[in-house]
Amino acid sequence: MTTLCRPAIAVPEHVITREQTLDLARSLHPDHPQLPLALRLIGNTGVETRRLVRPIEETLRHPGATVLNAIYEAESKARVPDVVRRALANGELEPEDIDLIVYVSCTGFMMPSLTAWLINTMGFRPETRQLPIAQLGCAAGGSAINRAHDFCSAYPGSNVLIVACEFCSLCYQPTDLGVGNLLSNGLFGDAVAAVVMRGEGGTGVRLQHNGSHLVPGTEKWISYVIRDTGYHFMLDKRVPGTMSMLAPAMRELADRHEWDISGLDFYIVHAGGPRILDDLCHYLGLPPEMFRYSRATLTERGNIAAAVVLDALDRLFADGGVADGARGVIAGFGPGITAEISLGSWTGGPVVPEVTGSVAVPAGRGATAAGPAVAG
Amino acid sequence: MTTLCRPAIAVPEHVITREQTLDLARSLHPDHPQLPLALRLIGNTGVETRRLVRPIEETLRHPGATVLNAIYEAESKARVPDVVRRALANGELEPEDIDLIVYVSCTGFMMPSLTAWLINTMGFRPETRQLPIAQLGCAAGGSAINRAHDFCSAYPGSNVLIVACEFCSLCYQPTDLGVGNLLSNGLFGDAVAAVVMRGEGGTGVRLQHNGSHLVPGTEKWISYVIRDTGYHFMLDKRVPGTMSMLAPAMRELADRHEWDISGLDFYIVHAGGPRILDDLCHYLGLPPEMFRYSRATLTERGNIAAAVVLDALDRLFADGGVADGARGVIAGFGPGITAEISLGSWTGGPVVPEVTGSVAVPAGRGATAAGPAVAG
Repeated sequence: MTTLCRPAIAVPEHVITREQTLDLARSLHPDHPQLPLALRLIGNTGVETRRLVRPIEETLRHPGATVLNAIYEAESKARVPDVVRRALANGELEPEDIDLIVYVSCTGFMMPSLTAWLINTMGFRPETRQLPIAQLGCAAGGSAINRAHDFCSAYPGSNVLIVACEFCSLCYQPTDLGVGNLLSNGLFGDAVAAVVMRGEGGTGVRLQHNGSHLVPGTEKWISYVIRDTGYHFMLDKRVPGTMSMLAPAMRELADRHEWDISGLDFYIVHAGGPRILDDLCHYLGLPPEMFRYSRATLTERGNIAAAVVLDALDRLFADGGVADGARGVIAGFGPGITAEISLGSWTGGPVVPEVTGSVAVPAGRGATAAGPAVAG
Repeated sequence: MTTLCRPAIAVPEHVITREQTLDLARSLHPDHPQLPLALRLIGNTGVETRRLVRPIEETLRHPGATVLNAIYEAESKARVPDVVRRALANGELEPEDIDLIVYVSCTGFMMPSLTAWLINTMGFRPETRQLPIAQLGCAAGGSAINRAHDFCSAYPGSNVLIVACEFCSLCYQPTDLGVGNLLSNGLFGDAVAAVVMRGEGGTGVRLQHNGSHLVPGTEKWISYVIRDTGYHFMLDKRVPGTMSMLAPAMRELADRHEWDISGLDFYIVHAGGPRILDDLCHYLGLPPEMFRYSRATLTERGNIAAAVVLDALDRLFADGGVADGARGVIAGFGPGITAEISLGSWTGGPVVPEVTGSVAVPAGRGATAAGPAVAG
């Protein structure tokens, strides 16, 4: 029995609205031949606000990959410990109870990964296994849950900490001017998230089955080109249509375990963009409200990459959870095109709301924060 | 029951000898104040030859991170499929038998990782799980074995493919002039390796227990600084002494399972440098010949990062293996400072030697290869 407990989320203090994003696109690219298309696409994402680790004027300057990576390291060290502490508290675990840390992040690179620093500074045991994953992109949230689930199956009673640290704004490339890039500039947001998976006890999603699916021949549809300016994000225009290929994979996994993918009680999926959610409604024969948590993440925070599924899951908890035994699915989608799918049922009864807010100004920064520290 | 079968290794066709390395250090850094120290350190590595993916004159030029990453992608696609095919053949498995691909590489970055391309081009099932690990450095060979073992424990009867792709020469940074850098320039080599882990049957190391250990407070001892010129390797002068901290961790894991770490029949460890092997002899009270496979890897190929443990393991197979039930340890060491340790016993009887040589010129390149294609 493996239970995914309540996640902890933090979004940065710098806010950018859809209107600001559209104004920026107009002022930065007035002569772009496809500006009207880009504006329409950005307007249709459904993203109202996003949070950024730096003020927008800083975000728009590219200081070079050297500086961006130093910012990534500093910001991750400033922002991750708080969500880790809150995730441990949500799961009623101490650092020494954790047997594996899965750290997922595709927006900055460190070696050793932040896992070593977390173990050294937060009281985890030296024997804690480290599993840093950098190359699964937005699918990594689902992948982290699935590999953590596998680990708990291999070692019954063990506990896993999952951390997702996504500063998508550090991958902004001002010279990338394809329509896919302009759209991405209006879609992605920053967030950090953490969650514990308990091998025994806990309130949340009891994980039961998981699976992965790679859509053949799509490995170039979502990808990075690595340049001396950092990660350059490539988004193929066919990506929004991939649910026609991934919904059947979700159904097939459910069928294999005699679950009905169209008859579940909750759906926590990667909100890569609005069409993903619309198409899942269509292909799975579900009303839009079944994806309300993922939709809220997209609306309030944008596509926060591997952190989306944890943010959406947190909203299920904030809603009080569901009835004991109610069934659901958690699915991350990302480059490959890969889906990482997990089936589980609610356990432990109703949820007491988390007290702490989820917009965090890192310690010692409160006085200098440019944006309002509104509760998310 | 989980058995690590015979690995397949390939090293590139471009050879550099220790004498050539020393001559280069003298000619490139004639006025370096610590040249004599660097020459002594390089002379003491015990590395006789290394293999590089490009001719030495090309390796010494830094064409920028953009080009280096494109070379990484091209070379990995040219060189990995052959070792994958041979590893599958060694384990008597077909691509469709594989449930998880663990891909470890710290010398180049792709998103999606090579796992997606391998699944698409080599006949693996779309349901194959992908686990790319880029941030565990030289410890990743041990980590891959341990996470694959965990997976097979979670899903008895499943099979895992492990791939290690290390082109250390693509991380050469001509402007890094610390003694640790000059030493590294004479220590690291290039190689690709693959191995399958069978959930049932197979000849090789039946894995039984695994564990990880992070030496507290050492996270900066082996690290990358990420710059617009790529990965800059930082090596602290205290690293060669870390076996005083990791040998006890190996002993502790063995003790916990009532194995005697000093009384095993085979030792397959990361040959990061000569002192690691000397110190393990000392701290574990063992004669040098117990580390002959790792020593041979270091001598003939240099430190080939995450591929070392697979190359050393291949030499145990080439030696005919050991008696059924004979016990041993496999350990990777790397940034963190992290050890990934595995305990297992030989199963399946003696080994029929692999016919294929292990120095591979990628298909279509035979005519243009600059170096001799000598059998390794």
